[in-house]
Amino acid sequence: MAVIYERVALIGLGLIASSMAHAMKAKGLAGEVVGYAKSAESRAVALEIGFCDRVEETAAKAVVGADLVVLAVPVGAMGAIAEEIGPHLAPGATVTDVGSVKQAVIAAVAPHIPEGVHFIAGHPIAGTEHSGPRSGFATLFQNRWWLLTPQGADAAAVARLRALCEGMGAKVDEMDAAHHDLVLAVTSHTPHLIAYTMVGVADDLRRVTDSEVINYSAAGFRDFTRIAASDPTMWRDVFLTNKEATLDILGRFTEELFALQRAIRLGDGDHLHAYFTRTRAIRRGIIEAGQDTAAPDFGRAAQVAPKGG
Amino acid sequence: MAVIYERVALIGLGLIASSMAHAMKAKGLAGEVVGYAKSAESRAVALEIGFCDRVEETAAKAVVGADLVVLAVPVGAMGAIAEEIGPHLAPGATVTDVGSVKQAVIAAVAPHIPEGVHFIAGHPIAGTEHSGPRSGFATLFQNRWWLLTPQGADAAAVARLRALCEGMGAKVDEMDAAHHDLVLAVTSHTPHLIAYTMVGVADDLRRVTDSEVINYSAAGFRDFTRIAASDPTMWRDVFLTNKEATLDILGRFTEELFALQRAIRLGDGDHLHAYFTRTRAIRRGIIEAGQDTAAPDFGRAAQVAPKGG
Repeated sequence: MAVIYERVALIGLGLIASSMAHAMKAKGLAGEVVGYAKSAESRAVALEIGFCDRVEETAAKAVVGADLVVLAVPVGAMGAIAEEIGPHLAPGATVTDVGSVKQAVIAAVAPHIPEGVHFIAGHPIAGTEHSGPRSGFATLFQNRWWLLTPQGADAAAVARLRALCEGMGAKVDEMDAAHHDLVLAVTSHTPHLIAYTMVGVADDLRRVTDSEVINYSAAGFRDFTRIAASDPTMWRDVFLTNKEATLDILGRFTEELFALQRAIRLGDGDHLHAYFTRTRAIRRGIIEAGQDTAAPDFGRAAQVAPKGG
Repeated sequence: MAVIYERVALIGLGLIASSMAHAMKAKGLAGEVVGYAKSAESRAVALEIGFCDRVEETAAKAVVGADLVVLAVPVGAMGAIAEEIGPHLAPGATVTDVGSVKQAVIAAVAPHIPEGVHFIAGHPIAGTEHSGPRSGFATLFQNRWWLLTPQGADAAAVARLRALCEGMGAKVDEMDAAHHDLVLAVTSHTPHLIAYTMVGVADDLRRVTDSEVINYSAAGFRDFTRIAASDPTMWRDVFLTNKEATLDILGRFTEELFALQRAIRLGDGDHLHAYFTRTRAIRRGIIEAGQDTAAPDFGRAAQVAPKGG
């Protein structure tokens, strides 16, 4: 593929930024990849692994002459970074971000973007429970959605950013920022909060020792622990900045949970059976859409022992 | 390995029973495997795949002359099956079950077990979201725990059953039935109810269309849909029969969830960050105990595309 941006500055060098760097290099999408991270160790790792061609000790220096700047820091840190880099952005450059919340990021970043620079907020729906500059890999975005919330940004600049995302293997969709935040509250933010809560409850329970919770986790609980192992700073910021939508979906969740709890208390088996049957269909839809594997247990058995029988 | 039981009767031919049959055959642990399922189709599948040597049209016929009888039906059906087979059990035989709840199964089954027959309730902590006679495989129990709640059963009979479970690759632990039900309420029953609830909420939400929930499920939600795709009848029975422990853990869960919800509403980032940091440790424990893979996303990426970078 052809080079889409001559110089890409990655601000933040965690899972998403390092995966972008690997993907851009694998497909020849960027002329030069410049990196900045607050942590000197992360900057050193980026050079050691080689996914950045160059690192800088400040974000302001890293963005000089870049035609694409990617803000890949926790959502709560976006505003301060934008303020710092604003005066150093090249005319005609594009600034994007990869935050899990869009309205709050746009509100924090947009005021610092000078005239003549394109700001196109974005969010790749991809990730793992691992974090940091060593956790990235080139195929992270393969067949995943990358949502852009351009809010009227220049069409040519949007098309160019879209080409980059597609070049890294993603499917691109555009939507309104408020709608994004509601959809993600359903598919991501509330599930994460619930998983964190359940793991915390298990951790608290003194009658059930740690080793029992751990040994018998294969019964379902271990799936929750994967989600609850995600980066704490990133998730703190998500909940603080997508407060309204998360609280809205949480309210609905609690309402449904209470209805099922009541059915258990009253012994209403028909209600439970009907509910549990309905939820099977969504799984089939996700597998048919190529967004998950049909292999039992996510194909996890294959990681441990060959499948028999 | 040597034959441990000359004739094993499997009552119910779903995921667990068919996996046991595959495992017993692979390791030569059973002389003959006889099967019974209510559904004629399941019986035909058992013969077609060949994991049963013989099937019978009634449970009573299937248990004749068996030295091990395995009750592998939904928990709510255990009592009626036990009543039916009771008069046909061979003296000296062992009856076990694989239900996810132990106190209710013991209460339903024990009254029907004649003098001279050993009843040892059990529960393999293993499974996938798939169900039915085609879903079984020989390595399902590999490195998983198999809990026995013998409640004073004959020591030699317990040792023999333990040898069978270990022969199929499982690790065996014995515990009190009430303690089992509480532990499983934490590691399995409550997580399942929560996953079912979250998937139901997403399904209900009219502002967020089905295709958006499905397309953007990779953000975490798809993990919940796997759990919520489990067998509805089995799970209805679990909640109806482990009511007290499930309601107890649900109460604690709701309490914690409300505390986190309040922290979000008040913008208390420190509370959230501390909570999310604590839950990371449990995941590490589970991986160190060999109960899950450390590969990102359960190694799911490997099912879709080769890992790069």
